[in-house]
Amino acid sequence: MKFKNFTIGIAALLLMSTAINLQAQEISAMQAPKVVSPEIADDRSVTFRVLSESASSITMNGSWMGFGQTLPLTKGEQGVWSITIDPLESSMYHYNFFIDGVAAIDPTNPHALRDGIRYASLLMVPGEGSKLFEINDVPHGNLSHVWYNSPSLGIYRRMYVYTPPGYDSGNSSYPVLYLLHGGGGDEDAWTALGRANYILDNLIAQGKAKPMIIVMTNGNPWQTSTLMTVPGHPPVTRENYVKFQGQFEKSLVEDVVPYIEKNYRVKAEKNSRAIAGLSMGGGHTINASIAYPGTFGYIGVFSSGIFNQNEDKETLERKFVVLKESGVSKYWVACGVDDFVMDSNKRLLNVLDKTGLEHEYFENEGGHTWANWRTYLSMFAPMLFD
Amino acid sequence: MKFKNFTIGIAALLLMSTAINLQAQEISAMQAPKVVSPEIADDRSVTFRVLSESASSITMNGSWMGFGQTLPLTKGEQGVWSITIDPLESSMYHYNFFIDGVAAIDPTNPHALRDGIRYASLLMVPGEGSKLFEINDVPHGNLSHVWYNSPSLGIYRRMYVYTPPGYDSGNSSYPVLYLLHGGGGDEDAWTALGRANYILDNLIAQGKAKPMIIVMTNGNPWQTSTLMTVPGHPPVTRENYVKFQGQFEKSLVEDVVPYIEKNYRVKAEKNSRAIAGLSMGGGHTINASIAYPGTFGYIGVFSSGIFNQNEDKETLERKFVVLKESGVSKYWVACGVDDFVMDSNKRLLNVLDKTGLEHEYFENEGGHTWANWRTYLSMFAPMLFD
Repeated sequence: MKFKNFTIGIAALLLMSTAINLQAQEISAMQAPKVVSPEIADDRSVTFRVLSESASSITMNGSWMGFGQTLPLTKGEQGVWSITIDPLESSMYHYNFFIDGVAAIDPTNPHALRDGIRYASLLMVPGEGSKLFEINDVPHGNLSHVWYNSPSLGIYRRMYVYTPPGYDSGNSSYPVLYLLHGGGGDEDAWTALGRANYILDNLIAQGKAKPMIIVMTNGNPWQTSTLMTVPGHPPVTRENYVKFQGQFEKSLVEDVVPYIEKNYRVKAEKNSRAIAGLSMGGGHTINASIAYPGTFGYIGVFSSGIFNQNEDKETLERKFVVLKESGVSKYWVACGVDDFVMDSNKRLLNVLDKTGLEHEYFENEGGHTWANWRTYLSMFAPMLFD
Repeated sequence: MKFKNFTIGIAALLLMSTAINLQAQEISAMQAPKVVSPEIADDRSVTFRVLSESASSITMNGSWMGFGQTLPLTKGEQGVWSITIDPLESSMYHYNFFIDGVAAIDPTNPHALRDGIRYASLLMVPGEGSKLFEINDVPHGNLSHVWYNSPSLGIYRRMYVYTPPGYDSGNSSYPVLYLLHGGGGDEDAWTALGRANYILDNLIAQGKAKPMIIVMTNGNPWQTSTLMTVPGHPPVTRENYVKFQGQFEKSLVEDVVPYIEKNYRVKAEKNSRAIAGLSMGGGHTINASIAYPGTFGYIGVFSSGIFNQNEDKETLERKFVVLKESGVSKYWVACGVDDFVMDSNKRLLNVLDKTGLEHEYFENEGGHTWANWRTYLSMFAPMLFD
């Protein structure tokens, strides 16, 4: 055994290194009561804790709570604030503390995620409801941060590309799902919050979805990438949002699709291309599919719809007729019954009905939430590429 | 122009969506004074601000500060706490606030990074010193999160693989640098804190480094991945650290190298393989190179050395002689003059001297810091694969 006579005391070095790097706060924390947070009980009630001797108020907000609600933590012995909430359904949630009004992630929870320009702590309540997006002991696809040139926008941009298990070692060609995020998000959203890569790993392992590539772009066409603006590139402003309206769809179909079809082993034909998106990305999906009929054989619109009521209805309907005539294998629409986009969603359904574009509609509880979008992806992916 | 008659009011939807998702805290924040943080002045002094009406103490720690130091913010008008620090050298830094003692990232800074199990806000002070690791308008390589099977460890594991610009669209084969992190880090460290991908993008664009693949593994052999332990896999405990000692090097050479050489277009020979690591990863580098002589033609040891003084010196020296005889194109050692590992670093230099293994040594200011490790990578990469 080569490593029996081990030359370097790596464990010793780790200990040294850890000790030397300790901050003063950490040293005092070592003398302070041990704080565990979050702690999930067997009944799925959850206790959150945070240590502060001097705070005057600590509250929290969680993604399972109603809009704008907060719950107060109570100060106990030795400065440990805590709250125990009623049992949650097994699922994935995120939450923040507010320390004297300052938003913070849970300092003792190493799992955090980024939601646009904000960070939150991740809470996975394990059980039936979380199995589909947990990291299970199944083969995993890879997730690539891919930089590509966008001639339409005149900039380099970044997207995430999921390749299914077996892609690297095999020679097969795969179908592609273009999966679009909502307003405030970016190319990170569908994996950080949507768990799209793990959902597909699990569905593929169960034989419920075909192995596919997923392409997750940045729907904000003035940005090079997540939060990144390279010097000389357009800054992130409200004016640019309006100015670049419509440019994303063009760059998706004219830049991204050709890049993927050139550089990956894909089936480059309509019935091996799917497009889906949530909220703003659902709008992008509607736009791109009618602007480029015959490009996508599978179309999914999650929590979105038609927002511009002033649009010339005949022009709009004509576009949907052209899309219908191009041949659509599946047009799937999903929305939560409490979603604030319900009126717009209904306008989309009306146009689909009126133009005879065959579609399926799924309505469930809840509103404009990642819990719903993960559910929608897990329902839509198995419908693809028959 | 296809998008002139724009069907869906995406911008309107974005506004709606943003408005609906606002939390109560955010609404009150909109009525509160606008807080900008961090604000970098032309002279590179930096002002940090955070809003709290009720906090009794807010301090901060930054990576430019000495060990364990904090600076107090001062409460000003309308609950805005602030501090302005003296000009910093242009470089990349990270920092935390402590709100009544609770560690927090800066809530108004969208750029954060993970350092092991902690999060910090990123501060990029632009100028000469930051150019090498900023995201410049040059071609970017891709960064893949790659899952692979590790027969040595009996688990699936995750690593990051950087492929240089042009990899996807070309047919060339590339040399590979295996780049190892330190204690407390994982496969994320060399990109999040080390900016290895952007450093190589920039060096390659300037013609200073050859295009190469960089493989960044997880040096904690009981983990599947960053913070992730799949059910049934060994948990993260001190006991496992000791139990698995030495297993990382074996899995690197016997599992990772073959995986990379099978699945990537690489030059599979000694003088196209480099290994380098910082701190614990420097120890892994020393171990792996003497345990597998003839595998790596280029060896870089950053801020590390030989820690076990009880090791039988003759056995150790014999291993270095075998390594020397296997043919090493470059053995490069770097350490900061203030680094706490200096004694161990000197023991490594002594062994290299004594065994006549030709090497170069670079000593600079500072200690056990990412500022130094970014510098070392930017010096080492240009030496590779002549």
